[in-house]
Amino acid sequence: MPASARILAPVHPSAPATSPVLGQATPYLRLDVPAVAASYRRLAAALPGTAMHYAVKANSEPAVLAALRAEGSRFDVASPAEVVAALATGAPPEDLVYSNPVKRRCDIEFAAAQGVRLFVVDTPEETAKVAAVAPESAVLCRLVTSGEGSDWPLSRKYGCSTHQAVDVLRYAATLGLDPAGVSFHVGSQQRDPQAWAAPIAASARVFTALRARGHRPHLLDLGGGFPARLAEDCLPPEAYGAAINRFLDRHFATRPDTLVEPGRGIVADAGVLVAEVLAVIRRGDTRWVFLDAGVFTGLVETLDEAIRYPIETDRDGGPSGPCVVAGPTCDSTDVLYERAMVDLPLDLGEGDTVRLLGAGAYTTCYSTVGFNGFPPLPTHLAS
Amino acid sequence: MPASARILAPVHPSAPATSPVLGQATPYLRLDVPAVAASYRRLAAALPGTAMHYAVKANSEPAVLAALRAEGSRFDVASPAEVVAALATGAPPEDLVYSNPVKRRCDIEFAAAQGVRLFVVDTPEETAKVAAVAPESAVLCRLVTSGEGSDWPLSRKYGCSTHQAVDVLRYAATLGLDPAGVSFHVGSQQRDPQAWAAPIAASARVFTALRARGHRPHLLDLGGGFPARLAEDCLPPEAYGAAINRFLDRHFATRPDTLVEPGRGIVADAGVLVAEVLAVIRRGDTRWVFLDAGVFTGLVETLDEAIRYPIETDRDGGPSGPCVVAGPTCDSTDVLYERAMVDLPLDLGEGDTVRLLGAGAYTTCYSTVGFNGFPPLPTHLAS
Repeated sequence: MPASARILAPVHPSAPATSPVLGQATPYLRLDVPAVAASYRRLAAALPGTAMHYAVKANSEPAVLAALRAEGSRFDVASPAEVVAALATGAPPEDLVYSNPVKRRCDIEFAAAQGVRLFVVDTPEETAKVAAVAPESAVLCRLVTSGEGSDWPLSRKYGCSTHQAVDVLRYAATLGLDPAGVSFHVGSQQRDPQAWAAPIAASARVFTALRARGHRPHLLDLGGGFPARLAEDCLPPEAYGAAINRFLDRHFATRPDTLVEPGRGIVADAGVLVAEVLAVIRRGDTRWVFLDAGVFTGLVETLDEAIRYPIETDRDGGPSGPCVVAGPTCDSTDVLYERAMVDLPLDLGEGDTVRLLGAGAYTTCYSTVGFNGFPPLPTHLAS
Repeated sequence: MPASARILAPVHPSAPATSPVLGQATPYLRLDVPAVAASYRRLAAALPGTAMHYAVKANSEPAVLAALRAEGSRFDVASPAEVVAALATGAPPEDLVYSNPVKRRCDIEFAAAQGVRLFVVDTPEETAKVAAVAPESAVLCRLVTSGEGSDWPLSRKYGCSTHQAVDVLRYAATLGLDPAGVSFHVGSQQRDPQAWAAPIAASARVFTALRARGHRPHLLDLGGGFPARLAEDCLPPEAYGAAINRFLDRHFATRPDTLVEPGRGIVADAGVLVAEVLAVIRRGDTRWVFLDAGVFTGLVETLDEAIRYPIETDRDGGPSGPCVVAGPTCDSTDVLYERAMVDLPLDLGEGDTVRLLGAGAYTTCYSTVGFNGFPPLPTHLAS
């Protein structure tokens, strides 16, 4: 598809218009945009001197992007539609990092035509693609990490070794690109600040090797992974900022420019998924609570019970007991929590409202187009 | 939400319009509607005397629903939007079975207002809901099955024991409903015809118990589960029809009316997901093939590598080797096949076209609204 055609595709080509009216039919995501901005400010303050690139994929709601831009946020994008959404906030293209390490050639071309000049790569092939269609760009080479300690871990899908990164960046220089530096990602909902230690050390080794060969790497992309609070008492943003600063001081004699790509850590806690109980049923000894929201209406991260949203109800406070929580579609995969059951009030019943906390990230964007006739999760902006 | 408001929600509130033009940018689902009709006719012929209710959830493309209606198909629906889609074909409401065992009360009311009169239940509570808002309806009580032998198995989410079913149906009669009979589901992509044996026997026991108490159950819903051919050499539809007929003869002295709810078995093999290779990369000893279609653009059933789509390429025939197959989004979950790698041509490269066969069911409907800026999978009708 020519670049000119792709610009027409919005990030949510199909999501219903957001509505400021609360109290409508469930399910919906209630999103508190001022809370998003407050999260942004707190994380930014915890990472002084580090550029903040909000990861658009976590929640591309235009009001979120606009509010973050007003706070000075830059953006982390991964597709033409995300480039368009980020630029629509008025952000200049040099404030974007195109972080998808494996891209369609014409998508790189599209981004370059919009003025994007910073791309993540992790192979010589991808580096050559960037050089071919986005010359005069800078590249960051992504290192592989273990993802240990994260709730939604990374696979071996992306990233290379430090030796390969040195080769990739040297190759980039031969192609006329700026071998700007290194990128890594510690895994989403990463709770352990120590997770940044090894990749920062590895990044420093790449910088040293490149400098020894006459290059001038200058930029370190520390990735995302900053956790939402969710059920667990995660450490505050300041703990992650302090740890990262310590690791940077330890491993870099000359500190490079740094950037982060937070998504979940900024937007998750500002969202509450409001759902209704369709039925409470006994199956043998087990109580099943059926909700009108499920895996196919945004709760994909409950697959394998990876992300556990704290659940509040209007009946909290009385006696409670364990139950399985299921979604509304006919699909038997549409069960949120079964292995580890959820403690909910014993008098919870049909028509009651439940609230899944920390649901502002990776929910509306993960909704299906309407599987089984259940519409995508809409966003209501809390005023 | 009042029933009048819910009718406005289409089944695909957000999917892009289908296009008859082939050869456009990938990815897309190429859907052969005449092949859908042919599959329908073959399965119907294999199940003489059994009413065919196409499971709209498998693929709600309007052209598919219209073609099936032209063949005489009835419909299996699970939400107001699916009721609307089925009725839009001109099907009368009595040709619909509302098979979702756990429903929102106002959704039952909506369906009843459209004339739907047959609902599946599996608890007394749901039976009471139907009696309250859809009086003069008939109910089928769903039995639990093991799902053994199916590739996308059912959980314990739905269904009750034969004893409970007798109680539910007797209760339905006391509420003025028609205790019409029994429903079960053997699990999607069920390859073993023997899977129908135990639930048919169990259904017969329910019928016998009800008749002994003066009721007149008359309808047996044999569910779906009929497999697509996919990679394996599944048995032909006739094998399933013959087995089901044999089990019915064995267990029912007086044979009830029967219906089936095929979805995948009718539409899967008529669809080919056409995608493009973004990159072929070596990661250590492993070859990774990145496609522009993935888990979030329709290939949800590759999660846990449950459904294995046969993959064809234009380079087939030469030397080949194993590779991991991954999707285009930044999400590390977006890997289709890794544990069991796929054998693909060694000279496969960027820009090559690949075709995932048997992809007509549970793909377009499972697409996200546009995660990471990658649009939902569109449908192109093959002419």
